[in-house]
Amino acid sequence: MSKARRHDLQATLDHITALLEKQDLVAGLVHKQHQPRQELVESLVARQQSTELRREVNALHPADIAFVLERLPPGRRLQVWDLVDSAHDGAVLLEASDAVRESLIADMDQGEIVQAAEGLDSDEIADLVPDLPREVVPELLRRLDRRGREEVRSALAFPEGSVGALMDFDITAVREDVALDVVLRYLRRRGRLSDNSGLLMVVDRDGVLKGTLALEALVTHEAETPVAALMEREPVTFHTTDEAVEAARAFDRYDLITAPVVNVHHRLVGCLKVEDMVDLLREHSQKEFLAQAGLREDEDFYAPVWRTARNRWGWLALNLLTAFIASRVIGQFEGTIEKVVALAALMPIVASVGGNTGHQTLALMIQGLALKQITPHSFRHLLARETGVSLVNGLIWGAVMGGFTWLLYGRAELAAIMLAAMVLNLVLAALAGAYIPLTLKRFGRDPVLGSSVFLTGLTDSMGFLIFLGLAALFLPV
Amino acid sequence: MSKARRHDLQATLDHITALLEKQDLVAGLVHKQHQPRQELVESLVARQQSTELRREVNALHPADIAFVLERLPPGRRLQVWDLVDSAHDGAVLLEASDAVRESLIADMDQGEIVQAAEGLDSDEIADLVPDLPREVVPELLRRLDRRGREEVRSALAFPEGSVGALMDFDITAVREDVALDVVLRYLRRRGRLSDNSGLLMVVDRDGVLKGTLALEALVTHEAETPVAALMEREPVTFHTTDEAVEAARAFDRYDLITAPVVNVHHRLVGCLKVEDMVDLLREHSQKEFLAQAGLREDEDFYAPVWRTARNRWGWLALNLLTAFIASRVIGQFEGTIEKVVALAALMPIVASVGGNTGHQTLALMIQGLALKQITPHSFRHLLARETGVSLVNGLIWGAVMGGFTWLLYGRAELAAIMLAAMVLNLVLAALAGAYIPLTLKRFGRDPVLGSSVFLTGLTDSMGFLIFLGLAALFLPV
Repeated sequence: MSKARRHDLQATLDHITALLEKQDLVAGLVHKQHQPRQELVESLVARQQSTELRREVNALHPADIAFVLERLPPGRRLQVWDLVDSAHDGAVLLEASDAVRESLIADMDQGEIVQAAEGLDSDEIADLVPDLPREVVPELLRRLDRRGREEVRSALAFPEGSVGALMDFDITAVREDVALDVVLRYLRRRGRLSDNSGLLMVVDRDGVLKGTLALEALVTHEAETPVAALMEREPVTFHTTDEAVEAARAFDRYDLITAPVVNVHHRLVGCLKVEDMVDLLREHSQKEFLAQAGLREDEDFYAPVWRTARNRWGWLALNLLTAFIASRVIGQFEGTIEKVVALAALMPIVASVGGNTGHQTLALMIQGLALKQITPHSFRHLLARETGVSLVNGLIWGAVMGGFTWLLYGRAELAAIMLAAMVLNLVLAALAGAYIPLTLKRFGRDPVLGSSVFLTGLTDSMGFLIFLGLAALFLPV
Repeated sequence: MSKARRHDLQATLDHITALLEKQDLVAGLVHKQHQPRQELVESLVARQQSTELRREVNALHPADIAFVLERLPPGRRLQVWDLVDSAHDGAVLLEASDAVRESLIADMDQGEIVQAAEGLDSDEIADLVPDLPREVVPELLRRLDRRGREEVRSALAFPEGSVGALMDFDITAVREDVALDVVLRYLRRRGRLSDNSGLLMVVDRDGVLKGTLALEALVTHEAETPVAALMEREPVTFHTTDEAVEAARAFDRYDLITAPVVNVHHRLVGCLKVEDMVDLLREHSQKEFLAQAGLREDEDFYAPVWRTARNRWGWLALNLLTAFIASRVIGQFEGTIEKVVALAALMPIVASVGGNTGHQTLALMIQGLALKQITPHSFRHLLARETGVSLVNGLIWGAVMGGFTWLLYGRAELAAIMLAAMVLNLVLAALAGAYIPLTLKRFGRDPVLGSSVFLTGLTDSMGFLIFLGLAALFLPV
């Protein structure tokens, strides 16, 4: 593995960009002077490539190469990608975000793809396969040994997001009846352990998991100690069908580094590693963050405008629909507004504050659902408390806004209506913030996606309805 | 460490709740029968406590005890907390969320607190100290040995959020000129390595870090191999003054398990461990999630209404201010609205769609800033693309809404104004979504906090201004 030089990552990016710009400049000058361009540029570029830039790029950790590639515009990205040693290609593809990975693969020919992928572990190949051109996959599988082929097939057979699809096949297993020196001799003969293993698996003759042995225990106990005396007999164990996100949460909760994965017969089939769990949690929270704003996918930063615009239509259409409904609500009160035009200026306050406070309850609910904090009891409590909070805040801030209304328009009835509408809409917003994500979840939807648009739609429409409705009922014209 | 039984965590919680309810029921019956209540209940409760519930609770992993405590209402929480063996107290306090930890500590007397804390590692004690009552700390420090005392003091001296404040002092260091069998003999004599170490540190006579030796390398190479031949000479290393969140991102990027921490003289002073990094990343993303909705702190789920309401005032006040400004913008056009009351019904559409699409740009910017994707070049690109997207979407969906306007009100001028206002407000929203977080960041503020309120305030006010302004200018009355 190449050197990890995290401290100058931004500097590295700047340096690479500068080198690329210099290269462009030279090419540009050559072009202007009408010299035999093609050859000269090629020789220049070749010389450049063979020296500083190539050295710079390939000295980076694959994760950092991916970092740099993700931050370069598409043309430059491919220029740099061509300079990456083919030995790193597979690792860089694994580290790159989905959209960037796609653009890199599109730039490779079949031979390069196969070469890049065949150096990877089975679970990593399985990770790449969905992004590879269809015709490459059979060729790639043919190049693997029988075991590798079976592992890739097995990983692909598990549904996305399951432990089986994510697990690592590279495990080291020992028997419980041997002594530590036997284990050490075996490991030394074997000569390698995959990175960050941390644990040896203990299995019986049939491959059934009996426990785990931490490397810490292996190196701190006398050579004659039997494995059985040191092994953890009830390690946290996952099944291939478990949800990967739940497994990641268990890694977080129990401070795990490696954990065994078993099949229905409790046979050891692989392991999960903390680094994959960290990736998963990060991707999960990034996805949630973007999903809240209706951004569905990991958009390529350099995707064309038209594609990006279309990507966002679903969300926009939903938003327009709710806005249109709110508009029609107001439309029903045009007569009232015509008589008291101040209503038009005041009504957005009720709607806006409702939306904002509703989002606070919504955030608590979504977090509570994700952390499994929402039990029937705690939901009743949350509902009671959020209603209480919205009542208190509605009364206090409704009174403040009522006061301003009175000062501005000199009409006490208008102020009273403002106060009443604020209280009612805040309570409604709290209820909506609590029930909308719960309802989405009941219907098997992700509560993060869409909750916000529904909530705003509701608090807007109802805010207008409550405020204008009260005005139509009680305002002397 | 007790057994980790993650699969029945929800069932466990339900079971404990059921046991607590049974207990309450018995107490309630006794009370109704006017028997000598105090004694009887005490004996009953004592019997209950000494049996099932206590066994159930103490069989859990400390992280799971914290999970259960966090999900119980305050009264029940303390009932269960009293049942937790004092040996687990410290670990449970560490695992509990800040708000719950506070409520647990408030229930303990000085002796219990000292007892709970003194079993912990120095870095863990330092983690607890800020939440402990002031008078307990000197007593606790007195109980530690000199080294422990120094470590706690040193951890407390580093600013919160720095690597120094988070690092683990429990490191195992060896010399580079010894052979592996010497290392193994040393470790066996020493008899323990802290959990999830993964790495031995290699230092010179002065304690200066020379490299790291992975346990994997230690157990897979022949006994006579010198450490120097196997050690990683340029491990990813952190300084006590580095930002902890940046360190956590490096752990994620480079798949680290343990990493050395050095001081300014490059002397080894501690290590970082992946489990602490995972906690940090989780807490960080939870905080960001809540901060987006203006929820500042890790609110206790069972905090009283009044405190919760007050907690949210800052955000609410800011929101009311921006809503008030938007309202005054509309107020300036009351004359226009009086003549064409349809404007009142249509104007929220422009504001709402602007706010929503602006939030998409905002989410991309906030994520880009967090991932350090925002360079001058990429910002220009983002700005151009988001403006392009908002132009495209403004034209298309503005035309759709213009069409509806025409159908509803039969006025082509009104439809044209709707289209123009949509385009302008969407472009403005994209610019605001890009510049607001950047500006907050420039002023040293967290771009997550407040961006949303400012954005909505701007898109509302400007949406109204643009739409009503165009109407005032161009609409024949």
